[in-house]
Amino acid sequence: MNPMAAAAGEHDDELATCIVVDFWANGFGMRVRIALHELRVGFGFVEEDLRIRERSDLVLTMNPVHRSVPILIHRGRPICGSINILEFIDEVWGKRVDTRLLPADPLDRARARFWADFVDHKVFNTQTRFLKSKGEEKEVVKEELLDQLKCLEGVLGDRSFFSGDKFGFLDIVLIPFSSMFRGYEQHGGFDLNAECPFLMQWVKRCKEKESVRQVLPDEGEMYELHKKWYGIE
Amino acid sequence: MNPMAAAAGEHDDELATCIVVDFWANGFGMRVRIALHELRVGFGFVEEDLRIRERSDLVLTMNPVHRSVPILIHRGRPICGSINILEFIDEVWGKRVDTRLLPADPLDRARARFWADFVDHKVFNTQTRFLKSKGEEKEVVKEELLDQLKCLEGVLGDRSFFSGDKFGFLDIVLIPFSSMFRGYEQHGGFDLNAECPFLMQWVKRCKEKESVRQVLPDEGEMYELHKKWYGIE
Repeated sequence: MNPMAAAAGEHDDELATCIVVDFWANGFGMRVRIALHELRVGFGFVEEDLRIRERSDLVLTMNPVHRSVPILIHRGRPICGSINILEFIDEVWGKRVDTRLLPADPLDRARARFWADFVDHKVFNTQTRFLKSKGEEKEVVKEELLDQLKCLEGVLGDRSFFSGDKFGFLDIVLIPFSSMFRGYEQHGGFDLNAECPFLMQWVKRCKEKESVRQVLPDEGEMYELHKKWYGIE
Repeated sequence: MNPMAAAAGEHDDELATCIVVDFWANGFGMRVRIALHELRVGFGFVEEDLRIRERSDLVLTMNPVHRSVPILIHRGRPICGSINILEFIDEVWGKRVDTRLLPADPLDRARARFWADFVDHKVFNTQTRFLKSKGEEKEVVKEELLDQLKCLEGVLGDRSFFSGDKFGFLDIVLIPFSSMFRGYEQHGGFDLNAECPFLMQWVKRCKEKESVRQVLPDEGEMYELHKKWYGIE
């Protein structure tokens, strides 16, 4: 696929200089695309099909250490790791549109990064174990996953977004997970609106954002893909 | 122990506002102390003995999610996770002494963060598996560990420090690992000076820094502690 074939964003001047390599259903990569849309950075998109075991030459060249996506290629140079890419995007383009993704205050920034790490190293791990689990184990991991979502709901509190009044870094980090929420409900037999009503209202608010709507995939397709991936019957 | 009992750093004005909770042999926590010394921030130190299974009330209160150290308590508010704390220290105190830990250029910052993540999620994991391994498995993991150290040596290249001419973020992230290097050699039966000569010269250069010398523990004591921890005979 031609890197330039799928173009997105309002600023065409960045188009030739900014390419995202990613798989449509990769929650980590969705973050990058949402952030670029949010800061109105035009980018080319190269699909890397993660259902195939082999990685493309582009990925092997641009991320030889981890051989993973997303990769942001900016002026020919790769930036890897979704959180790392978000920091880069914020530092390069955040000032231009006067919309920084991370908060200004160092303590608020530290809190946002702390919870981003929690999402990546706790929630993602629990999601994977949950979707792979069956029977009694499923009940145990389900409770763990719900506890973590409720913990995040506590972090959100009564604010509109994790960053306060406006959609920002931690919102972008977490919102891609919501595309698996219907899958959670079907796999675990529960209603997230009943379990985490405030978090679900936050999801709804995020989905009103154009940047999010453009990127989040269909929840049904996401669950079907993960069913195949994890051998869910 | 009184949080104020052990004071360090040249600026006493920060003393009452900045406390590090850590265990002397915790490589992640050494980073925090080196960074504070480097930016001349005074701090109180509270020892958390990780050899004891139970965590102190202070740790349970300040880091209820992970119950781990290091924790930096700044004006009564906790910042957790060593990389997160380094970013915080850089943002709060880096400007004051005109010595930012992270580079200024966004791409250089992204590279430094990428390799910091590599150290935390690859090298640390390999170190742990190596120190726990025996017999044939030990030989396999030893090669893996040496490959990763050589990879980092390649990142260093012919520069004096990972940040270039001056000691910075990635140097601080990696240098605590060097306090286990003698342990690696004893456990694996090899000579790091022969395997990674440039990396070992970098270690020597770092140890010339007062901030590093004040924090790095005795390598023999470190290996003795890890021998007990991992049941090494």
